[in-house]
Amino acid sequence: MEMKQLTFSLQSSLLLISLIFVTTSVSFKIPRLSPTGGQFIHGNYWTQSRPSEASSPAFDPKDFQTFYYNQTLDHFNFRYDSFNTFQQRYLINSKHWGGSNISAPILAYLGAEESIDVDIPIIGFLPENAIHFQALQIYIEHRYYGESIPFGSREVAFKNASTLGYFNSAQAIADYAEILIHVKKQLHAEHSPVIVIGGSYGGMLASWFRLKYPHVALGALASSAPILYFDDIVPPETGYYSIVTKDFQEASETCYQIIKKSWSEIDNIASKPKGLSSLGKKFRTCRRLTKSSELKDYLKSMYASAAQYDGPPNYPVTVVCAGIDGASSTEDILTKIFAGVVAYTGNLSCYVNQPKSLTETDVGWGWQTCSDMVIPISVNNDTMFPPYKFDVDEYINKCKATYGVPPRPNWVTTYFGGHDIKLTLSRFASNIIFSNGLRDPYSIGGVLEDISDSVVAVHAKNGSHCLDILTSDHTTDPDWLVNQRKSEVRIIKGWIAKYYADLQALQ
Amino acid sequence: MEMKQLTFSLQSSLLLISLIFVTTSVSFKIPRLSPTGGQFIHGNYWTQSRPSEASSPAFDPKDFQTFYYNQTLDHFNFRYDSFNTFQQRYLINSKHWGGSNISAPILAYLGAEESIDVDIPIIGFLPENAIHFQALQIYIEHRYYGESIPFGSREVAFKNASTLGYFNSAQAIADYAEILIHVKKQLHAEHSPVIVIGGSYGGMLASWFRLKYPHVALGALASSAPILYFDDIVPPETGYYSIVTKDFQEASETCYQIIKKSWSEIDNIASKPKGLSSLGKKFRTCRRLTKSSELKDYLKSMYASAAQYDGPPNYPVTVVCAGIDGASSTEDILTKIFAGVVAYTGNLSCYVNQPKSLTETDVGWGWQTCSDMVIPISVNNDTMFPPYKFDVDEYINKCKATYGVPPRPNWVTTYFGGHDIKLTLSRFASNIIFSNGLRDPYSIGGVLEDISDSVVAVHAKNGSHCLDILTSDHTTDPDWLVNQRKSEVRIIKGWIAKYYADLQALQ
Repeated sequence: MEMKQLTFSLQSSLLLISLIFVTTSVSFKIPRLSPTGGQFIHGNYWTQSRPSEASSPAFDPKDFQTFYYNQTLDHFNFRYDSFNTFQQRYLINSKHWGGSNISAPILAYLGAEESIDVDIPIIGFLPENAIHFQALQIYIEHRYYGESIPFGSREVAFKNASTLGYFNSAQAIADYAEILIHVKKQLHAEHSPVIVIGGSYGGMLASWFRLKYPHVALGALASSAPILYFDDIVPPETGYYSIVTKDFQEASETCYQIIKKSWSEIDNIASKPKGLSSLGKKFRTCRRLTKSSELKDYLKSMYASAAQYDGPPNYPVTVVCAGIDGASSTEDILTKIFAGVVAYTGNLSCYVNQPKSLTETDVGWGWQTCSDMVIPISVNNDTMFPPYKFDVDEYINKCKATYGVPPRPNWVTTYFGGHDIKLTLSRFASNIIFSNGLRDPYSIGGVLEDISDSVVAVHAKNGSHCLDILTSDHTTDPDWLVNQRKSEVRIIKGWIAKYYADLQALQ
Repeated sequence: MEMKQLTFSLQSSLLLISLIFVTTSVSFKIPRLSPTGGQFIHGNYWTQSRPSEASSPAFDPKDFQTFYYNQTLDHFNFRYDSFNTFQQRYLINSKHWGGSNISAPILAYLGAEESIDVDIPIIGFLPENAIHFQALQIYIEHRYYGESIPFGSREVAFKNASTLGYFNSAQAIADYAEILIHVKKQLHAEHSPVIVIGGSYGGMLASWFRLKYPHVALGALASSAPILYFDDIVPPETGYYSIVTKDFQEASETCYQIIKKSWSEIDNIASKPKGLSSLGKKFRTCRRLTKSSELKDYLKSMYASAAQYDGPPNYPVTVVCAGIDGASSTEDILTKIFAGVVAYTGNLSCYVNQPKSLTETDVGWGWQTCSDMVIPISVNNDTMFPPYKFDVDEYINKCKATYGVPPRPNWVTTYFGGHDIKLTLSRFASNIIFSNGLRDPYSIGGVLEDISDSVVAVHAKNGSHCLDILTSDHTTDPDWLVNQRKSEVRIIKGWIAKYYADLQALQ
């Protein structure tokens, strides 16, 4: 184990990726999956203003040690190339650990589509609960993100499908298995129960990890993990944008109506001579609009982001609607919409079409959505958005054009399942919490019903994306959120207690 | 689905492989894992004389249809090459199937390290029980065996690690998942419960399949599956050759003593001038011996094979010992041993060092034991054999020298588990039968204790390798074997009944 003092480099995680051959156009219909939303393509309110983005009082960078594991490039192949290795980063905080002699637990955060540096300061669940579990904390970075880049450099790793091919969820969880086995061995903690924790895509990884590696992890907390948003499991009459719509309609019927009417108004103006220029002026765009979809995509992303992260203390959906509803009733529709934009983003020198660079997450998630993470998001007729039917063939062609290889839209359900999940798992598997906030549009692809006594759904009607695992704030967190977290801790303690009883009985 | 009439080509499965660059020397310490033993490196009694090798009366080639599935070369990678496909063969027998409208069950035999043609006629469990389950029977060939060869030809597929790399157990069970999902879809039988069945290596695949793809298979019958014979799970004081020894000692103490003394006698003679020639004469070897290990390896394999397949009606261990014990007491040790050889193999024009060609199984299993199937078989001091300590470094070096890539001795336990299996699976997983015959030396690496109510061990004190799934013979099968099979069927019926109840409750 090579050791290094932890130096947080949030800057480096915002590294600008200049590999312009990668476009995110194919995936713009798939809102970014992330606990933080920090890199949501069009920016969002949440990370700019949520007080708890400031890291938890329980979090202290000095408590962390950084390690690098010599990771196998391809776990499932024995070609010469498969044996190449890369340095995979993980961090350990043993401040509260009870030690191997009592087989004290391990809380393992499974990294997702960003540098682990982004997550560590904001995932409060581990540092806040480690003391109650006497738990070791470990945070593992996902391959191809942060410092855990194969092939020696980001340039080579992201060059094309021959180097990107190893970048997928099955390989990622095999990485986690190897590292957790290695760490337990190093610490002589073979019998320490491991609880894996992840949010969003990382939450999917956590639940899949428990399903595929029950001998490595005793249980999983899968926060806002839309493991059912694959194939045709989400019924066609609902979907991500249906929940966004519901959130807005519940916040304000007038706001919802205005948004609903705004799209044809935009099209209408855009179709007139100098219409784009007129729209540009109205929305004070940073650069001139070249097509109306630039504006519409911006707005769609803003509403989606507001809904996905519609949590305390500011509830961005309410903020957007306060802007829209607050505009004088005599104003035209798009002036009201713009008031919503300003309310959401704050006062800026310009809006829409901001110059932006692709982040490593944009690039990485762009590939992932074109390999195994094919999340088929349609926009139904009954939403406040222009309808859009996900077309898998078109999607495949776009991915092929970008990467030279097609995605595998059925692989997730083949490998991890999802269809008839209650039927298939009610007498198989154990110890998974699927937590969801029902305001989070991704919750429509989440597990919202208990599957069995120990594969359970915990959801909060007013919750948003990954809220439960983020740093808590005792001044602003509502009771239901405090209780949700307590209930999750209680469930996990139950698993661990049973495990210790089993361990004792078998020894 | 391309269809083809089934034409059994047992001949083709005995195809001589002339790829002489592949040696099996690195794996000779690992007795072949197979329900049939047909290609056990040094031949064996069992397939030559067991009456039930004649196929089951329930088996009729005309009932089978052959299909080929366009299989993905690499399920876990998105490199360009990963998308190559090959034609994977599977056969369906729908004679007794109750149909999709009643979601009648599917019994799926998971092919192992041989052509599926070898297994179909002798795996009686499916044809004999299909009628009781109203089950569809499906038999799937393992990649790189039989007709299911990637890269267009055996020559290319087996050329070196760059084409062999895709040949491993994780890829193989992913193949099975794809085919079973495909078949269920084609037959509109999405809710038909699938029971996977396999023997030996195929039994490992069956149990691992249930663990990794519970959404595809409801349950698994894993016959003689030594899933614990990896890493250091089998305790050092026992092992494969300890069970061989026990079998012989139980059959005849004198026989055991003679075998035990024979090794030093062979060494003794071999060390004398013209000693090898003298040994060659005594054992009527087909070609002259160039070293005494040729004779010793032959004998070791014969004893191992006799023990592994020590089943009714002939019980080859008893046959060997009858030969040894039947020789006149005044004869020398090696004359007695030779009498055992003759008793086991029958009257041949010559013995030992027969000219032989590598079968496709020799070649395929040679690779598999040098990639993920690293079964660390030592020979302990208390056996009737010369002791041998499995040396993982030496093993790795031999594999590297042969294939240019090392094996991954820890991969099976990383991916599939095995350590503390009761602790890890007692509250996870369901519906697996681990069946073993305790005379089978591989049973020492099997699961011999119930793990939970539905992950159960069924073992027969006098059973041998895979006996329960082979064609039954009502004239010679002992009661315990008949009862073992009945008990397995009863357990599987219980799983299916619960499944149908769940299905009804959820619909």
